Order: sequence, then structure tokens, then C-alpha cells
Amino acid sequence: MDERVFNFSAGPAVLPVPVLEQIRDEMLCLPGAGASIMEISHRGGPFTEIIHSAEANLRKLLDISDDYAVLFLQGGSRLQFSMVPINLLGEGQSADYILTGSWGKKAMEEAQKEGQTRVAYTAKGSGFDHVPEQGDLDLDPQAAYCHYTCNETIEGVQFNGEPDTGGVPLVCDASSDFLHRKLDISRYGMVYACAQKNAGPSGVTIVIMRKDLAERSDANLPSYLSYANHIKEESLGNTPPTFAIYVVDLVTKWLLNDIGGLDKMFEQNKTKALKLYDVIDAHSDLYKGHAQPSSRSVMNVTFNLPSDELTSKFLGEAKKHKLEALKGHRSVGGIRASIYNAMPVEGVDALASFMKEFAKNA
Amino acid sequence: MDERVFNFSAGPAVLPVPVLEQIRDEMLCLPGAGASIMEISHRGGPFTEIIHSAEANLRKLLDISDDYAVLFLQGGSRLQFSMVPINLLGEGQSADYILTGSWGKKAMEEAQKEGQTRVAYTAKGSGFDHVPEQGDLDLDPQAAYCHYTCNETIEGVQFNGEPDTGGVPLVCDASSDFLHRKLDISRYGMVYACAQKNAGPSGVTIVIMRKDLAERSDANLPSYLSYANHIKEESLGNTPPTFAIYVVDLVTKWLLNDIGGLDKMFEQNKTKALKLYDVIDAHSDLYKGHAQPSSRSVMNVTFNLPSDELTSKFLGEAKKHKLEALKGHRSVGGIRASIYNAMPVEGVDALASFMKEFAKNA
Repeated sequence: MDERVFNFSAGPAVLPVPVLEQIRDEMLCLPGAGASIMEISHRGGPFTEIIHSAEANLRKLLDISDDYAVLFLQGGSRLQFSMVPINLLGEGQSADYILTGSWGKKAMEEAQKEGQTRVAYTAKGSGFDHVPEQGDLDLDPQAAYCHYTCNETIEGVQFNGEPDTGGVPLVCDASSDFLHRKLDISRYGMVYACAQKNAGPSGVTIVIMRKDLAERSDANLPSYLSYANHIKEESLGNTPPTFAIYVVDLVTKWLLNDIGGLDKMFEQNKTKALKLYDVIDAHSDLYKGHAQPSSRSVMNVTFNLPSDELTSKFLGEAKKHKLEALKGHRSVGGIRASIYNAMPVEGVDALASFMKEFAKNA
Repeated sequence: MDERVFNFSAGPAVLPVPVLEQIRDEMLCLPGAGASIMEISHRGGPFTEIIHSAEANLRKLLDISDDYAVLFLQGGSRLQFSMVPINLLGEGQSADYILTGSWGKKAMEEAQKEGQTRVAYTAKGSGFDHVPEQGDLDLDPQAAYCHYTCNETIEGVQFNGEPDTGGVPLVCDASSDFLHRKLDISRYGMVYACAQKNAGPSGVTIVIMRKDLAERSDANLPSYLSYANHIKEESLGNTPPTFAIYVVDLVTKWLLNDIGGLDKMFEQNKTKALKLYDVIDAHSDLYKGHAQPSSRSVMNVTFNLPSDELTSKFLGEAKKHKLEALKGHRSVGGIRASIYNAMPVEGVDALASFMKEFAKNA
């Protein structure tokens, strides 16, 4: 077998090795099913058990009450960018958007196609290097909902709590930090996240939604675009991405049983991030962190080097140390180290050592 | 390892064992990638190679010209039911639907939400037991498109050629028989198919579309619903279901290299189906085939027994012979043996023997 590297990909991203091993071992025959997970009906016993288990694990990890539905959908967060306003933004209403990076902007662009939007805050003026304080928000108390992106993958800025939107339902794109810590779901109208960072492979999007909000869905919506329909059908209105949901089940089991829950996961994540930010701060002449210190992401550590030449050299030498996928997003350049839940501490230690060594020789 | 059964599931369905073995062997480390297929960027070299290869294999198997785009989308055929009219059915236009079973009906129901539809043929009167002859069709020469379902999975009826719609673009839901034989793609405006029968796992839908048709897409559509956008972005406008596309690549490679192309696959499929229909015809007092003989599907063999009691007995005894997932769709009951490309001849032989034995003792 080829050798695994330390994979800092922003997503699809690193998965826990025990999960990959179990998938491998069960690939030809899921225990009790007589066939691969990919070959069985989404309405049969073995898959029903899997999707129920995945939902139960999520409810346990995040303490989700019965007032909320948990859905497994397709189309990525991109489709959620449209489904949110299509379902929740009524005629004559307006939706608030808090913009702290590239993904929030894209979410609002899709919403603008569907109705009226309003910017409750934008960090664009400072190159999306921070998240706002509560007092900075210009909230519309009549808004249909208020949308924000709790972690901006490209810029590496992250909220460490949720905005208080009063009676306005808070909608959160949690794609790139979902399950990295516990959330108080009762503060949200809806949380959605594509799986390919902390929860599984690409191809499934998890939606956690206060059930009463889905009553806003127009009865004449295309079936696949209606939250009300997905809730009624329990994500089985059409064939779901069964394999991807199976992986989500295994990853959430790993979080519960191997890690011991999200508080423990969060401690690990903070420790890992600190190791890298400490190196950045100790070598601030060479490594320029993009995010303001108080808004730093514990998932995506972004920084720049003084020249493109040094950036290329950094990436090339990192590769020789089996440190891969460190190039920043094509829209911003620089370096991005994505250190999701499944990135082992050893990977972060290896990167931190390399960064120190590189700084010494630069 | 548990023992694999003969799996007659209608979908998600049986996959080629060599494909499953390769997935298993590469699960922790895709050769050259240093990580699992699930852990790598959709924009990096290894995945780019995979998606290009999957497309090239499909173009080779079906001889698809450059006038057509090949897309890998999410949301299943259910989302296509809506995307087709959303993109192709203009203001004041009407679309024709040929109804030969449950899925065609559902496709038209979604289209009715988006605009004007018209029934060009329905086999409902005879319980969807046949497909029409060309002369039976009542076609609108002004239709925006004409939609049909080439194989109805639930009823087990199948076209063995395509309707001639003249200048009206023919749109085909090929979900349950895609890649079972060669199609003359130049006769179609668009062919779409969810992968979970002959092409891969659930979670990816293959769309083959004449590029000029996508010019009809309204520029203001939600990005994920626009064919024009997916064509422009080459299926990478957002993170695609990378694992599912990887499996499609492996399955299409298997069709090209192990099977030797779609003409050979079709010969095998006809041979397999004939074995079961021969038993049905030889025991017509016990096994009542649902489809009229000239409309019989080579993918889904559907039949009824004289009583629910006998049906249950049949299913129970089949299980003892490791013949699984033979229960008919919950909407019609009876028996359904789905014998897709990857169902081995031995599986069909085992079922045929069992059916003869069961008839002897019934």
C-alpha cells in the first residue's frame, strides 16, 4: 500500500483512520446485509438502522431536541444557499446576511435571486479578517431570518459563539466547522453543513432545522427543494446517498466512542490550532496570519509569506516532509492548513516543526 | 467476512465484485494520492484524473459526441424531474410526457409545478403493463421537449428503442437501465440516470445533454439548478460527490475492459432475462408476468403469484437459498427480480432453478 501523508486539505478532508479501516473491512459485505453498503435498499432493515443511528449520534453529540428535524440531503451547501431563501423568505420579506468571508457572500448572492436581502454586517473592508462583535451588527428585527457562516474556510476566520438575533431565526452555514465543538442548537432556527470537512465524504449535507420553520415551505415547491417534504419523508423521499450517510454514522460513532464527545474534541482542536498560531506569532516577520487574533479559526489556519517565491518554496519543502494540500484557496493564495477533527496531533506537530525549521533557514 | 448473497435489489443494487475489491484495496490510500479518495480535493490532480476518466469512459461506451455535455450531479432523478422543466420549459410552452409507469408519472407531477404539460401517451388504463408503439403516440410538434422513461423499474416494462419525436428534443429518464445497452445518443436531447442501478452508488446522477439545449437555462436560476452553470463549471461549481464519481469511473472501466463494451453487456443481459421469463412462461399458472411479453424489461422481471400467502412463502424460501431482495415495490407488491449488469449469470441460474423447484412443490 502507498504511504499516507499528513493531509491538510480544506475539504474533502482527512477522515479518522479507524473509520476508513472499518469501511475497507466491510466493503464487500456489510455485516448482516449479505452485500456492500452500496448495494442495499435504502428502505431495507440494514440501511434503516444506519440512518437512524447516524441521526441518533448527531442528536446525542449536539443534544438536539425533538423540536428539530435532522435531514441528510444532497447538493452541498450550494443548494442550501438557494433552498434557505426558497423555503424561508416569504413574499415581501427580507433576510439579513452577516458577511465574514467568501462563502457568506456566495450564500447571499444565491438568496438575492430569490428575494430581498440586507447586509447586517460585512467585514469586506478589511479583507474579511475578522468576525463582528454583537454590538457591530445592524439587525433587522423583521427579517425572515438572519444567515451567517460560523467558519469561513477560505479566510480562516471563525465565530466562537453565535450572534444574538432575538426573535429572528438564526440560520448557520456550519459547513467547515460542524462537529468541531458543541453548539447550543436551541439558539438556531437552522444549521446546515456539507459533510466533507468533519462529518464524512462529499455528497451529503446535514440539515438541522426547527420543525416549525419548515411550515413556511410553499406546498408547490419542487419536491427536492422542500424542507417540509424532506421532513415528512424523513430524508427518504428519494434514494439518499446511502454510502455517504453510512460514513457519517461511522464518523459520529468515532466522535462519541473514541473521542468521548464534542467537548473533548474541542479541547483537542484548540490545542492543535494553538500550536500553529504560536509558530506564526513567534515568526511574525515571515508568517503573516490573515485573521485578526480574536477571530482566528481553529479549523483553517491561513497565513501568507512575504513573496510568491517563498510561498512556492514553503509548499515544495513541506511536500518533502509529507505535509500536503497546504496551498491557500485559489482566490486568495498563501498557505492554508486545515486541521479538522480527524487531523492527528502528530500531523500538526510535524507541520509546526517544519514551519520553525523553514523560518530558521528562510 | 460474512457471506455475500445473490442480491436482486432494485436499487441501490449489485455492483461488480472486482470494483468492490478495488475500492476496498484503495480505501486507505488511493495510489499516488497519499490519502483516501474521500479525503482529497476535487480540484487536485488525482481527482481531476478520475472525473475526466469517468467522462471519457462514458463517451467511449456510448459514443457521445462533443455536441453533448456529460455531467455528474446530485439530488437523484427526483431533482432532474424538476430541473428538466425549470431549465427547458419556457413561458407559454408545453412539454409532452409519455407515461408507462410510476416514475414517468412522478416526473410529470414535478413538471406540472413548473409549467404546462401534456400526456402524449399513457398506459395507465392497462396497469402500466406495456410501452406504446410509435403510432400510438399523440405528439405535440410544438412541445418544448418530450419526456419518457425507457425502463420502468416498478412495473418492469421497457422500451427497446426510442420514440421518434421529430424535431422535438427527446428527454429520457434512463435511471434503471442506463448502460445496459448502447444508445444512439444523437437521437436524444438529454439522457439522465441516477447511478445506483448500473453505474455506481446512490448520490450521483449522470446527465448527458445536448449543449445547445442548456442555452435555454434562465441566467437567474439558482446555481445548482442550472444546466448551463454545471456545463460551464464542468460539474465542479461546487464540491461534487467525489467518492460516487470514483465508483462510476471503476464501473465504466469494468464495462470497457472486463465486459468488452455495451454490445456484449446487452447480450449477457438478454440471456439472463430470458432465463427468468422462460420459467415464468413455462409455469404461467403460478407465475403471472406483469408486463406484456413485447414490453418486458431485461432489467426488472416482475411477476405475481396467485395469493399473498404464496408470495410470502416464495420470498421466505428464496431467502433460504441466499436469493435476496425479491419483494416487489411496496406500491404494487408481488415479486421483482432486478438483474442489472453486475448480477452474475450464476445468480440468475440460481433463481431460475429455485423458481422451477418452487413451482413443482406449490
